[in-house]
Amino acid sequence: MAIEGTSERRERRIRLGMVGGGSGAFIGAVHRIAARLDDHYELVAGALSSTPEKAESSGRELGLDPSRVYSDFKQMAIREAKLKDGIEAVAIVTPNHVHYAAAKEFLKRGIHVICDKPLTSTLSDAKKLKKAADDSDALFVLTHNYTGYPMVRQAREMVQNGDIGAVRLVQMEYPQDWLTENIEQSGQKQAAWRTDPARSGAGGSTGDIGTHAYNLGAFVSGLELEELAADLDSFVEGRQLDDNAHVMMRFKAKGGQRAKGLLWCSQVAPGHENGLMVRVYGTKGGLEWTQKDPNYLWYTPFGEPKRLITRAGAGSGPAAARVSRVPSGHPEGYLEGFANIYTEAARAIFAKRRGEAIDPAVTYPTIDDGMKGMAFVDACVQSSKRNGAWVKL
Amino acid sequence: MAIEGTSERRERRIRLGMVGGGSGAFIGAVHRIAARLDDHYELVAGALSSTPEKAESSGRELGLDPSRVYSDFKQMAIREAKLKDGIEAVAIVTPNHVHYAAAKEFLKRGIHVICDKPLTSTLSDAKKLKKAADDSDALFVLTHNYTGYPMVRQAREMVQNGDIGAVRLVQMEYPQDWLTENIEQSGQKQAAWRTDPARSGAGGSTGDIGTHAYNLGAFVSGLELEELAADLDSFVEGRQLDDNAHVMMRFKAKGGQRAKGLLWCSQVAPGHENGLMVRVYGTKGGLEWTQKDPNYLWYTPFGEPKRLITRAGAGSGPAAARVSRVPSGHPEGYLEGFANIYTEAARAIFAKRRGEAIDPAVTYPTIDDGMKGMAFVDACVQSSKRNGAWVKL
Amino acid sequence: MAIEGTSERRERRIRLGMVGGGSGAFIGAVHRIAARLDDHYELVAGALSSTPEKAESSGRELGLDPSRVYSDFKQMAIREAKLKDGIEAVAIVTPNHVHYAAAKEFLKRGIHVICDKPLTSTLSDAKKLKKAADDSDALFVLTHNYTGYPMVRQAREMVQNGDIGAVRLVQMEYPQDWLTENIEQSGQKQAAWRTDPARSGAGGSTGDIGTHAYNLGAFVSGLELEELAADLDSFVEGRQLDDNAHVMMRFKAKGGQRAKGLLWCSQVAPGHENGLMVRVYGTKGGLEWTQKDPNYLWYTPFGEPKRLITRAGAGSGPAAARVSRVPSGHPEGYLEGFANIYTEAARAIFAKRRGEAIDPAVTYPTIDDGMKGMAFVDACVQSSKRNGAWVKL
Amino acid sequence: MAIEGTSERRERRIRLGMVGGGSGAFIGAVHRIAARLDDHYELVAGALSSTPEKAESSGRELGLDPSRVYSDFKQMAIREAKLKDGIEAVAIVTPNHVHYAAAKEFLKRGIHVICDKPLTSTLSDAKKLKKAADDSDALFVLTHNYTGYPMVRQAREMVQNGDIGAVRLVQMEYPQDWLTENIEQSGQKQAAWRTDPARSGAGGSTGDIGTHAYNLGAFVSGLELEELAADLDSFVEGRQLDDNAHVMMRFKAKGGQRAKGLLWCSQVAPGHENGLMVRVYGTKGGLEWTQKDPNYLWYTPFGEPKRLITRAGAGSGPAAARVSRVPSGHPEGYLEGFANIYTEAARAIFAKRRGEAIDPAVTYPTIDDGMKGMAFVDACVQSSKRNGAWVKL
Repeated sequence: MAIEGTSERRERRIRLGMVGGGSGAFIGAVHRIAARLDDHYELVAGALSSTPEKAESSGRELGLDPSRVYSDFKQMAIREAKLKDGIEAVAIVTPNHVHYAAAKEFLKRGIHVICDKPLTSTLSDAKKLKKAADDSDALFVLTHNYTGYPMVRQAREMVQNGDIGAVRLVQMEYPQDWLTENIEQSGQKQAAWRTDPARSGAGGSTGDIGTHAYNLGAFVSGLELEELAADLDSFVEGRQLDDNAHVMMRFKAKGGQRAKGLLWCSQVAPGHENGLMVRVYGTKGGLEWTQKDPNYLWYTPFGEPKRLITRAGAGSGPAAARVSRVPSGHPEGYLEGFANIYTEAARAIFAKRRGEAIDPAVTYPTIDDGMKGMAFVDACVQSSKRNGAWVKL
Repeated sequence: MAIEGTSERRERRIRLGMVGGGSGAFIGAVHRIAARLDDHYELVAGALSSTPEKAESSGRELGLDPSRVYSDFKQMAIREAKLKDGIEAVAIVTPNHVHYAAAKEFLKRGIHVICDKPLTSTLSDAKKLKKAADDSDALFVLTHNYTGYPMVRQAREMVQNGDIGAVRLVQMEYPQDWLTENIEQSGQKQAAWRTDPARSGAGGSTGDIGTHAYNLGAFVSGLELEELAADLDSFVEGRQLDDNAHVMMRFKAKGGQRAKGLLWCSQVAPGHENGLMVRVYGTKGGLEWTQKDPNYLWYTPFGEPKRLITRAGAGSGPAAARVSRVPSGHPEGYLEGFANIYTEAARAIFAKRRGEAIDPAVTYPTIDDGMKGMAFVDACVQSSKRNGAWVKL
Repeated sequence: MAIEGTSERRERRIRLGMVGGGSGAFIGAVHRIAARLDDHYELVAGALSSTPEKAESSGRELGLDPSRVYSDFKQMAIREAKLKDGIEAVAIVTPNHVHYAAAKEFLKRGIHVICDKPLTSTLSDAKKLKKAADDSDALFVLTHNYTGYPMVRQAREMVQNGDIGAVRLVQMEYPQDWLTENIEQSGQKQAAWRTDPARSGAGGSTGDIGTHAYNLGAFVSGLELEELAADLDSFVEGRQLDDNAHVMMRFKAKGGQRAKGLLWCSQVAPGHENGLMVRVYGTKGGLEWTQKDPNYLWYTPFGEPKRLITRAGAGSGPAAARVSRVPSGHPEGYLEGFANIYTEAARAIFAKRRGEAIDPAVTYPTIDDGMKGMAFVDACVQSSKRNGAWVKL
Repeated sequence: MAIEGTSERRERRIRLGMVGGGSGAFIGAVHRIAARLDDHYELVAGALSSTPEKAESSGRELGLDPSRVYSDFKQMAIREAKLKDGIEAVAIVTPNHVHYAAAKEFLKRGIHVICDKPLTSTLSDAKKLKKAADDSDALFVLTHNYTGYPMVRQAREMVQNGDIGAVRLVQMEYPQDWLTENIEQSGQKQAAWRTDPARSGAGGSTGDIGTHAYNLGAFVSGLELEELAADLDSFVEGRQLDDNAHVMMRFKAKGGQRAKGLLWCSQVAPGHENGLMVRVYGTKGGLEWTQKDPNYLWYTPFGEPKRLITRAGAGSGPAAARVSRVPSGHPEGYLEGFANIYTEAARAIFAKRRGEAIDPAVTYPTIDDGMKGMAFVDACVQSSKRNGAWVKL
């Protein structure tokens, strides 16, 4: 039970605004719970919808002060930046194509941005956003939330500690089944925007979930992707974006060790609700983590019995303890992992407030992770168009 | 993704106080997160410790108004009851022997009580508390938190729907390993009070975790315990309370069907972090749920393939959906289950506020569940003293 | 791949007879495969049925020399004992009530007996059989086949090596579901004799599977049962023998360490095909083995990560290697475990042939294990009749 | 318990010879057990080693008549073909490069051949062997043993029955870890020949295990491979053949449905002993089977709860029952699966003996499966040399 933990509020709460996430939106509610869990944030303003009536009713439901309910994110950025107690950070939870336009308004006014992934819908937007983030003193946090899971942190720490030797293989998969049938044409809103190139970008499953899998593989292995060869499909009749992707990867050698990877993402694999998994194999051992059972990490040192490390249990180290709340055997889940991104961001924001340097242990996905995700999607699409030719990243 | 869900705040937050739960207390932090998760409560006052300095520092850390930080729960009850915006509910998270004294002060002033389990440390206190709760118009909610897990609700609903026929067997177990060695004498605070009869009561593992297992078995099966035969042990040298218990059970027949049960709880079973499990078998099928993998429910209709029902997935019904937040495949855990008790309590408190009847679907453990838990511990201790004789409940 | 293994035939095959096991009998076929697997036996004679026609047709199907097909086991014993190349060993696979009468005929003629469990149908028969076995120079092997599984051997070896410290707890369970409904009255032959006191004895589930679970717990833990308290049931209307049993156990202290146990066996637990499981907990660690996944052994040293030891894999020792055939990752199953009993018996028979002492490493269940099983069933029945009073073994 | 089963001997045993498989050889012992399990074969002759002394001692150990122990397979073929009771079938269990030369000698003399996989070490040998098999009236059986597992048969049957709709995806993997280090240069014999191009052929992991995975995927899905793109590696310094392969696949459309696949095989993935797995996804559901837990098959009909079908349990159909021996819950393993190939072969051989047509239900891998495996390896090697270009099969 020696958990350092995420620590509850001991500093004044961060005033948070939100763009997107009106009534009925799945990911907006997730961000709000994540922000609330450790009590480091207080939602005080929102441009929750671009439809004024919906923005208003959503704001009312969430108990926001009506004067701080907006239907336009730019207005919100302008006004909140001027308020004495204006928002210090904003969560952007819109469809992908709005990310850039929204984020830049807040970044240029020094308001920290916590943005859903993928970074943007186009590579050109991504580059502009990268510039906006680089030019701003405000933080840019991308919610590649799966990196917030304690046992993912544990895996990364073990790779860094050399527990599995030099990494040779990174196997990633992220199968789902919710798009097995053509529900985008029968009114399912989530499906509609996620399969629409105008709102999602050039990647379907690659953008929506492939980026998560790739990000996780890179996060855990510490490797950098050099080139990939991809075979994308839209299995469902009439679907405009890929719903399945097979990707072979070659990573940059590290310490003289060549490394390869395989990535499968799918939204048409019946039986898989959210089957994100990452497996990493090195010269001395292996690691396996599965999102649906997130409190476990298999560690398989070569030539020794398999070990099952549990969150906050024996063998679980400081990187996991830092983002754990409850003792081992008491499962933490998706929301806690998501909240860890918010809490790590809060630690950074608190440091900024105090004018101090950010503790190097603070870990969250950044604009650069976002750029890599965009480059990954772009390379997948390019490679697939060229019949699976290798494309450099 | 058709989750009715726990619904975020749409009503004014409930003003909450807390007794116990100062810095470093595990369960206090858990209650606070649980209260916060769905944004139905706001912690505004606390008697977080009976040591004034600790009460004060704990209150400061949590950002409480200093005028509402108390070192005496009675003072808190008296003053808060008079304030215009005084607390509407209080969470009691002290060691067991304080529950009764604290709870009665709030109940008699009409302040709703959310109390940790077991109900009290003695049966006599329990009876007095039962009276106090019955005499009060305020609600009494006991945090048998495991009943808040969606798939536990699902299991109960399936039993009620007759999916497994008439119940014959209820097998409960709750093994842990944290008291495998005598840590209570080497300064581990949690261990110290939980193995101390003066603070915990007559039951050790039976009171601390056996009550949870029994409560869960009864909750899922809908059966009432008639008699039990128990064999208790204190395996660790010098330990004053039981750290292992074997219990045979006979339930009251229901619909003409006799039913039996077996309960094992232990704190000396190496490898078990928090191994609560309940299995129920009827004339037509079986159900199995394990706390460490809480998003799964095995349903085994006799003569058909085994089915794995996942939270919010196919086959998961309204009772589970009511206490779910995120889509299937996105695991929820211990804190979400705990929060569900708080959210169900909030639904009841909102109804009270409005002077309306409480929706019969609202489900949380009550004073009567607490009484049953106390009777269970008492019967275990009596039976074991009488060499495992059957003791009526 | 360093498996010592079961070794194929390097000695002249043992000439084997069989009593029972005619066409359609499940367990007869199992014994024959078990005898054949490592090529140490050759089936040359049989009294496969007491019905002459069936005995004859069964013998013909198995390719037996017609002159060595009998319809009476006594005739077979008399004649085979006189033949120059008569059988050296006999497998007895009849219903329980025939075991004693058959076994004694062979034992008294110096023919080794390999007998199915439970030992007999009555305690009085068991005592007589014990005497017959003690008086004979021939070996008596009881097929408590589950002790033949490599990872059961591994568990026992680890307990002996002190890997889990002094044993405190032995938890056994053996749930099945095939008697959930009253199939004995609708012509299912297996069910008919197994629920018939005249053919099975006083115990139903306790005799059929409870003895296996108890035998396994004792085998792995090395403990001796001192007393038990049992609550037996016949849940199915009209059933004459128990179909579910709850048993609390107290073992004889070993090395000053008191130990307790719990045993559940059931034939009315839907979803369990053959759910034999044994878990042992000591002062330093725990072990868990489940029959349906027999190539795995969980080893949980206190305070360290859980370890999964696999058959013939890392951490698997000589006791398991001795009864393994194929490399790790290539699952062995029920028939291989059963064959291991036959192969261990063959090793003993070969030693006898050569007039040598039997290697102390040779391990198989004996008449004494059979006696303990009978005493267990008897104690269960007595205790249950006396409302769960403790009965000494 | 309604198992049709593999049926024990009811016909005169098939006289079997063996080429290779002398003392110490792993796969030779496996073939012998497989041949013996259902008692359809009798080993009567052998060219167990090309070293005369070893051939002789191995023959003696196995109890063969010395006059039928050979050190040259050609001599054995010639002489046995002339004997009145000469062998009817031969098992070839040598390293790959001997397969062709040995097989042709028996095929041309009308002796049935049961040959280990892969078919040969070179494509040119394979073509010649194909011709030899086609020209012979004798049967040619390839021991792609994993197709013998009952739940693999079950999966294939369900695909054929349309239970998962039209197949879109076939995901195969076969990771092992035994070649993680360079053991071929430190005297490990198995490693030495399997990593030697002269004895194994052009493929390392692709030939040794990749062929199994591909064969299994094709067997279950019923699809035919059209083209593949592969990225092969030899991660271990100094290794001459691939020890890891990533392969993207495109299958021929069936019923208008395009299908893709992914295959990963590796011998350098620590923690994987023998991790063969196949997953197939169609328009209506998915199937998942893992070799290390072979008695289970996950069936996931889209939009319904996941189902776990167990061997011989509810939901398990005739194709599995045909190759099952014991009731559900009694695990069968690798040897039983292997034996099923032998038993299916025996059924065909019995039909040949009687001059009858072979029952169409008889299922075993043939020369054509062997040819496909060789083509797969060749295509992998070609594609990898051409930097992952698509290669038609």
